[in-house]
Formats: sequence, structure tokens, C-alpha cells
Amino acid sequence: MRLFDQKDIDKVIRLDTSLVSIIEDAFTDLVTKQTQMPPIMRVDVPEHNGELDIKSAYIEGDDSFAVKLSSGFFNNSELGLPSANGLMILIDSRTGRPLAVLADEGLLTELRTAAAGAVAAKYCSSENSRKAGIIGTGAQARLQLKALALVRPIESVFVYGRKTDHARSFKVDMEEELGIGVKICNSVKEVVEQSDVVVTTTPSKTPLIYSDWLHPGLHITAMGSDAEHKQELDASVLEKADLVVCDVKAQSMRLGELRSCGQSPVLEQARELGALTSGRDDGRKSEDQITICDLTGTGVQDTAIARHVYSLLVTEEDVIHERS
Amino acid sequence: MRLFDQKDIDKVIRLDTSLVSIIEDAFTDLVTKQTQMPPIMRVDVPEHNGELDIKSAYIEGDDSFAVKLSSGFFNNSELGLPSANGLMILIDSRTGRPLAVLADEGLLTELRTAAAGAVAAKYCSSENSRKAGIIGTGAQARLQLKALALVRPIESVFVYGRKTDHARSFKVDMEEELGIGVKICNSVKEVVEQSDVVVTTTPSKTPLIYSDWLHPGLHITAMGSDAEHKQELDASVLEKADLVVCDVKAQSMRLGELRSCGQSPVLEQARELGALTSGRDDGRKSEDQITICDLTGTGVQDTAIARHVYSLLVTEEDVIHERS
Repeated sequence: MRLFDQKDIDKVIRLDTSLVSIIEDAFTDLVTKQTQMPPIMRVDVPEHNGELDIKSAYIEGDDSFAVKLSSGFFNNSELGLPSANGLMILIDSRTGRPLAVLADEGLLTELRTAAAGAVAAKYCSSENSRKAGIIGTGAQARLQLKALALVRPIESVFVYGRKTDHARSFKVDMEEELGIGVKICNSVKEVVEQSDVVVTTTPSKTPLIYSDWLHPGLHITAMGSDAEHKQELDASVLEKADLVVCDVKAQSMRLGELRSCGQSPVLEQARELGALTSGRDDGRKSEDQITICDLTGTGVQDTAIARHVYSLLVTEEDVIHERS
Repeated sequence: MRLFDQKDIDKVIRLDTSLVSIIEDAFTDLVTKQTQMPPIMRVDVPEHNGELDIKSAYIEGDDSFAVKLSSGFFNNSELGLPSANGLMILIDSRTGRPLAVLADEGLLTELRTAAAGAVAAKYCSSENSRKAGIIGTGAQARLQLKALALVRPIESVFVYGRKTDHARSFKVDMEEELGIGVKICNSVKEVVEQSDVVVTTTPSKTPLIYSDWLHPGLHITAMGSDAEHKQELDASVLEKADLVVCDVKAQSMRLGELRSCGQSPVLEQARELGALTSGRDDGRKSEDQITICDLTGTGVQDTAIARHVYSLLVTEEDVIHERS
């Protein structure tokens, strides 16, 4: 069994259109192939305000699958450490033998989550989306913007974050990296009203977006909520939308935005992203529809990116061997 | 993060009375401390007749905890590979940071399972148990016998296995290793009738032991069943017993011998091993009681042995550093 650390992984993987395709295919697999994806396992460490989530998924026919451990320890900032950490283990599907430990410290989760945002935008947002709105200014906010720019002709960005200095860093970094103007807004409302596509990337426990602010043609991807106590969209937002999409319905009803819908018709009408990517269901049907996609994160995304990065790492090694 | 392989681990760990104490304490922790032990997560790989189980447990106050992946791929023998494999990951309880990967290939599971057998015998079997009965002749059968001999004055052994050549190897190896006479029996019944303590170590799907064969003073530890389709004891065996013990009641009712009891009073009267080791409940009360212990395997055992072996590995390294 091989151990690869974050540095090894960072050297070979990139957030690009090929990664978006890989994650898109994973969503398709989830609805078209026999998939074994047990519910998320969670170990709480209440003394240290921490939790460890374990995800996994095996897709019929694949020669390997991943198990992912991802932790959130929310006192870590006091120790000068990031709250998130984690690793993936790639297992040989034929023998159960562990092939590799990918000690990515959460990097692969960040990337596959961003790539899923691009897939959501590709199927739900208007093709002419030029104005991007980002709620939140952290690492995932940046990655979501970069991923979005891979699939839509983004020309300007509106951002809102609670900390002004973080919003300023976001503006400076993103303008330099993407060559697109970024405007710092004073409220979530201001962002929503000016954008064609909005991505929410916060750990909020109370709604940030309300239905009164929505306008025809808007798409919102809400990727922040992934636990029973989190919520970014008011229930009225989902009720007003013409199309509500999520990654896995059962999971979104438990951990994501669908949780707030109670027994409303929204639940029944909600589609899974894989049904769109596989062509089973339609995505956006017209320029003026209002669409929502809620992403909670799935084991198939982890398996897809782990398999991808492992193949890159092994190829990289072959090249090095050939050279030496 | 550190990676230790089976060879590193095998060098420092031993099945001895100190390991039995560590596992005994883990059972006590399970009932006396705040413990976070989610249900087992399972990923099936039906195409290759395989499954991966994930277990974990965090015990309040501990500075680390383990996540264990253990696989059973039952076509592996055709490839000349063992069916079992696996690894443990030790996580820092304060930060969520992975401390080490223990790529033990299932060794630690074998040892902690054997040690749990010794704990069961210590609290349930007669102190004067001199005759051991072993059903099964594999690696775990051998380890269970060795573990039993650590806590009871075993003088002779009765073994039954379906394959005569395996039973012969068991006899030769165990007589040499333990210096105790081993008699190969022609049936399970013959073993049970002659033994003071019996340990069943098979993957049987149908009962192997029936109540008619039980005699006063007998203790049986059934450690084979750990899945919905497995069973080693006829339901009548549990009904006839004076004391029925298991590791975790909810789990034994789902995956172990308690599953076959339906709604019988056995369920209500069954005790957990941790209640015995902590002194909350009594174990065996007299020489002529018939007692049963069903072990399905728990995350606290994994966390306990992973923490133990990690401390040994780190100490070992310190010694090497000092020498060099």
C-alpha cells in the first residue's frame, strides 16, 4: 500500500474541465449504475467541538473505490490550525486490498465540491450567465468561482462576506487570478439581485436568501448546508423556484436545504443532479426560469476524484521511473 | 502522519495478559464512560463477493480514537489471497488530525478478537476450566485457544473442524506451541460434551450447537456470527443457559446470536460484557451454571488496540533514535 501526502497530490491535480467531467460522470453513475453508497457515518467528539464524517461509494464495474474520512474540529482556530482535515483510502474492488492512502488534508474534498458546483451550474443556470454572485469568502468560495468560470462566460463578480477584510482579500486574489472585476457588496440581497448565478458557501444556521429577492433567470447553488443544523435558503426560496435539484434526495432531506421543506410539493418535484447529467430529466428549460441546486456532498464524488488522482500519481511515478 | 505496515506492528504487539487487560478496560469504558460508537458502516461489492466494514468509537477523555476498515472478499482464495484485509487510522481527538495509518492487514482485529474471548472466559467460565473445546481450525481458532490459556488453567483441548487435514495441523501446531494435548473429535457434539469451555470460531450460517448437548458448568463463547446471515448456536442453547452475555446488545440482536431469540425473555435478561467487567452485573455465580457469551466485535476494541500499538510503535522509535 502506498501513502501519498498533500504535496504529492497537489502536484498532479488541477481544478479544470476534465475534473468537472469526471465529477459529472460520477453523478450520472449514481443514477444509471448499481451503486453501493451507505449513509454517512459520523463520530462526534463533543469535548473538542469536533466531528468525523466517513463516506464511501462503490460503483459497479469500477476496479477501485474510496473511503473518505473528513473531520471538522471547530476549536482548531484557537490552536492556529484549519478546522478541516481528512484523508481518503482507495480500496481494490476485486480483493478488498487497500491500494493507497491519499493524505490530502481535505484538498480533494475541496476540489470535488467545487467541480460539483460547476456541474450544477452547467445543467441549471442560463448559458448566458455572465454575472456571478458568491456568498462567503473562504477557500471554497474561491474554488466555486473558479469552477463556475470553467462552464459559464463570467464577466463580473459580486461578493458578500461578513468580514470586510476577507472580502477585500477575495476581491484582490480573484481579480488577479481570473482577470474579472469583483464588486464587494454590503448584503446578500445586493449580491442576489445583481447576479445571474449565485453560489452560497457558508456554514450558516439560519436562512441567508429569501424568495422576495429572486428574479427571473436566476440560478442558486447552495453548497454550505451538510448537517442537520445548517441552512442557507429560506424554505420560500425552494417553493418559488421552477426547478429544484439536489445531489441525493434522501441526504438533502436530512442534511441539506430540502430539510426545511417539510411535506411541501417541492420534495416530490425535486430532481437529482444525476438525472439531469444522464439526460433522464430536464435541467433548465427557458431563460427566465428560477432554478436551485442543493449540494450536500456524496461518496461517489469522493470515489471519482480518488480514482482520478491515483491514476495521475501512478502515471507520474512511471514517468519518473522512465527518466531515471 | 505516519504509515506503519504489518511487519512494524507484528514486531511490537503480542497476545498476552496485558493486551487482555487493555481489551477488558475497553469493555468497561463502553458502559462507564461517554462513548461515541456509531453503527457499523458496510459497503458491499456484490460483483466480487466482497464487503468492507467500517467501525469506529471515541471514548470520552482519550486523546485519540481509531477508524477501522476491514474487508472480507470471499473469492480471494481463488487468487491465492486471504479473504480478510484491512487497516486502522488513528485520529487525534483534539484536532481531528490523522496521526497514523496502521496497515495491519487485519492482524489487530485478529488479536483484539482473541483478547475479547479471554475477557469473556475470565468473567463467564468456571475458574477451574481445564478442558477447552474449539470449533474451527483457522487462525482465529488458534488465537482463541492461546487467549483462553492466558486466563484459565487449560490442560487438554478438544477440536472439531470440517477438514481433517486442517484439524491435524491445528493439533500439531497447538501441541507444540502450548505444550497441551489436543484431541481431534468427529463432531461438534463430541467437543461440547467433553469441554468446560467451548469457543466457536466459524462462519456458519446454521446452528452448530444444540441445547441437548449442554452440561452443568459449561461456558460457550460464540465469536463467529457477525452478520445477519450467520449463526452458530441454536436458539434453544440461549434459552437453556443460566447467563447470556454479549458485547453490545443492539448489535448482537442484529448481527449475532441474539438475533435468533425473537422476543424471548433471553433478550431482556442478556447482559453486556462491559457490565460484568465494570462490576455492575455479576458474571458466573456458581460452578454448575451454564453460560454463553456472544461476541460480534466493537469499535471500542479497535480503538483500544490501535491506541496501544501506536504507543508501542512510538516508544520503539524513541529507543531506535536513542541508539543511533
